[in-house]
Amino acid sequence: MKHLLSACILSLSIVLFGQDSLMIRSIYDEALLRGQSYENLRQLCKNIGPRLSGSTEAQMAVEWSQAKMNTYGFDRVYLQEIKVPHWERGTKESAWFRTSDGQLTKVHLLALGGSIGTNGTMEGEVIEFKTIDELKKAKASKIKGKIVFLNQAMDATQIQTFKAYGACYAIRGNGAVEAGKLGAKAVIIRSLGLPEDVHPHTGSMHYEDSVERIPAGALATADASALSAALEKGTVRFIFEMDCRVFPDATSYNVIAEIRGSEKPEEIIVFGGHLDSWDAGEGAHDDGAGVIHCLEALRILKELNYKPKHTLRVVFFMNEENGNMGGKSYSSIVKSAGEKHVAALESDRGGFVPRGFGVDGSDAQVAFLQTFAPNYKNYDLHVFEKGYGGVDIGPLKEQYPGIPLFGFVPDSQRYFDYHHAPSDVFESVNKRELELGAAAISSFVYLLDLKLK
Amino acid sequence: MKHLLSACILSLSIVLFGQDSLMIRSIYDEALLRGQSYENLRQLCKNIGPRLSGSTEAQMAVEWSQAKMNTYGFDRVYLQEIKVPHWERGTKESAWFRTSDGQLTKVHLLALGGSIGTNGTMEGEVIEFKTIDELKKAKASKIKGKIVFLNQAMDATQIQTFKAYGACYAIRGNGAVEAGKLGAKAVIIRSLGLPEDVHPHTGSMHYEDSVERIPAGALATADASALSAALEKGTVRFIFEMDCRVFPDATSYNVIAEIRGSEKPEEIIVFGGHLDSWDAGEGAHDDGAGVIHCLEALRILKELNYKPKHTLRVVFFMNEENGNMGGKSYSSIVKSAGEKHVAALESDRGGFVPRGFGVDGSDAQVAFLQTFAPNYKNYDLHVFEKGYGGVDIGPLKEQYPGIPLFGFVPDSQRYFDYHHAPSDVFESVNKRELELGAAAISSFVYLLDLKLK
Repeated sequence: MKHLLSACILSLSIVLFGQDSLMIRSIYDEALLRGQSYENLRQLCKNIGPRLSGSTEAQMAVEWSQAKMNTYGFDRVYLQEIKVPHWERGTKESAWFRTSDGQLTKVHLLALGGSIGTNGTMEGEVIEFKTIDELKKAKASKIKGKIVFLNQAMDATQIQTFKAYGACYAIRGNGAVEAGKLGAKAVIIRSLGLPEDVHPHTGSMHYEDSVERIPAGALATADASALSAALEKGTVRFIFEMDCRVFPDATSYNVIAEIRGSEKPEEIIVFGGHLDSWDAGEGAHDDGAGVIHCLEALRILKELNYKPKHTLRVVFFMNEENGNMGGKSYSSIVKSAGEKHVAALESDRGGFVPRGFGVDGSDAQVAFLQTFAPNYKNYDLHVFEKGYGGVDIGPLKEQYPGIPLFGFVPDSQRYFDYHHAPSDVFESVNKRELELGAAAISSFVYLLDLKLK
Repeated sequence: MKHLLSACILSLSIVLFGQDSLMIRSIYDEALLRGQSYENLRQLCKNIGPRLSGSTEAQMAVEWSQAKMNTYGFDRVYLQEIKVPHWERGTKESAWFRTSDGQLTKVHLLALGGSIGTNGTMEGEVIEFKTIDELKKAKASKIKGKIVFLNQAMDATQIQTFKAYGACYAIRGNGAVEAGKLGAKAVIIRSLGLPEDVHPHTGSMHYEDSVERIPAGALATADASALSAALEKGTVRFIFEMDCRVFPDATSYNVIAEIRGSEKPEEIIVFGGHLDSWDAGEGAHDDGAGVIHCLEALRILKELNYKPKHTLRVVFFMNEENGNMGGKSYSSIVKSAGEKHVAALESDRGGFVPRGFGVDGSDAQVAFLQTFAPNYKNYDLHVFEKGYGGVDIGPLKEQYPGIPLFGFVPDSQRYFDYHHAPSDVFESVNKRELELGAAAISSFVYLLDLKLK
């Protein structure tokens, strides 16, 4: 009698709320009550730690990921071999500035990823610019032999913090080239971080063959403000040492897991994040959260015994941070192999509370995304709009013209407190926020599988 | 020429985006670039700390608030005298459980606010119930002389965490009365917190004159799980000491600041939070953030030289946590004084990233609230719906029938990590999230002032 009643209630629920709603509810329940995302992130952050491409830790992360995927009994788990850049910070990294009265101030500095070292202690007079454009307009005679200081603060008034980041990106990415062209001996930048604090934020930079290579580092925002204040009073010299250097390219891997499609196994829905991270902190939000989100998303679907129509594939991409060789290699390998990809999704904006999804795609694809909104009415997601997919899945666009690239959109307000900084550790990720992200992605992949023709 | 150009651009902006949009932008800029909310919260949390009604710290908080308001040059700053309950935790608070094999486990316990002490060490056999209803159905013969353990976990699958809190509220509020009716010697509850951790969460409870008073405490969730696991294996005894006690009611104050209305000074828009907090932690999210939000909201309007039509009044209510004498007294005092209140708003859900506003009001008032949504299109607020106002402003409903009670709605996912726990400290509040909350409330009050007839 009791079972009959339960069956009736279940049937009634299906009629009233639909099968999809029940499945989404089950996905959230699994993530929130029996979730493994937080413990998996803890293992990745605490048992391995930061995992820059080419490092021992990156290789440990590959092995840990493959072993973890194997425990979940997916249809297929495998490695995809790629070549990645290999840069190491070294062991010496210290910096000071000295004002004309001789006073020395120690500052918090991280070499930018890819920078050459200083070859012993380097010292020079500091010249400050607020933006890369201001630097470009400067006369070489004023720059020659000096240390260029690019002090552009992220704009706190931008509600979408990624916009503020994008606006400052050039000082980090192009600072060494532009300062080098004008004869500077080094470049230091204000960290691309929102709070005024003592955590420097590293990140990628580049050199050009035609321009002399100069060392490049990032100062903590509080130190950048202090240096700028000192410069207002007179001449300031900067003294620093970095013994970072570039090694030959290394062999590494994308790590892949799949559940094979039951109706269209040849059509692949791919979703992932990047397994590599910068070497400061533990790569918890960037992008430990993203790979763990996606692994948990597939685990939940498997656990609920869901039989997808399309093949569902999770990829832990290697080397997003300094070369994107994982993303670039993946797209050309799968294209060459004649595989068909019908949609891609990336999680690479941290483990914060979910707000929704964006899509890099056509108007029709935006309209398609908007059909997901009613499914998430009870789950507090509200962003379903045109947006950005992600760095790792970006190259798929060239190989599969017209493919929709979805990006998971968590709240962005705290992201640039931690991004590429020593503070991006496991403790900065909230368990429930991480679990809600995994549930959002798992249910989104489920709905994609259902809705895609 | 340059000024003329600027004037033209400004005029054009006003035409294109409207005066309101410019004002909202200015409010956000002030909050994010020159905001004082974070530093004010630091002073309240670190220089004063927890501030339970009747304590020295509560009085210090009243004086600090009045002095701070005076620095902002509002039209009027004053205290409103009220009577509040006075309960003190005392200095002894420790607890263990002992299994039948003699093994002793120390647990983290906080007396519930208002509880009597144990009068020395108390020991008794534990009997567990999952809900208050389960307890109510139990036979007195099974309960008599025992220590009742109410072990209802907050439901992690509720996306709106306040719903999960509400569902467990009875074990804290009514546990002592229901257990006392059946002859229990004490009641201990599983803390009303979402994470499984070692922070006990205190909060209010009540006694009834017709039922013998028994001591009541809250165990950390991790300890509650451990105790429950021990009970599955056999008899368990609980041993604890608490020397908390009730003192005679004390004199205290609501703290009030106003900018006088230029067109309808007799019509008051009141907004606030509560200045008192529990004595564990620093009352940072609950409700330091709320009072600081509202103070900053009024400061920003004053700083921008806004001349409101209605009188804008901020109230720091006293004693929300254990009696609501601030809210109750305020509503009857202002009604008796013949004051007219046209709208009320409360911030008492923490200093997290803003999601929007709810209103406790009529369908027409909900429709009115929904007219605010377009104003916040660029500010990432999306909740404009029927909801709850707040405990402090609740009594205004009786005195001013039909008054809309607005509640500020920040994200709720992390709130019950900290609520009433030692972990609710300044460091748990993110600067930018706090500032965005202040900007949302300041602009909302501005729009209310404009839109109210």
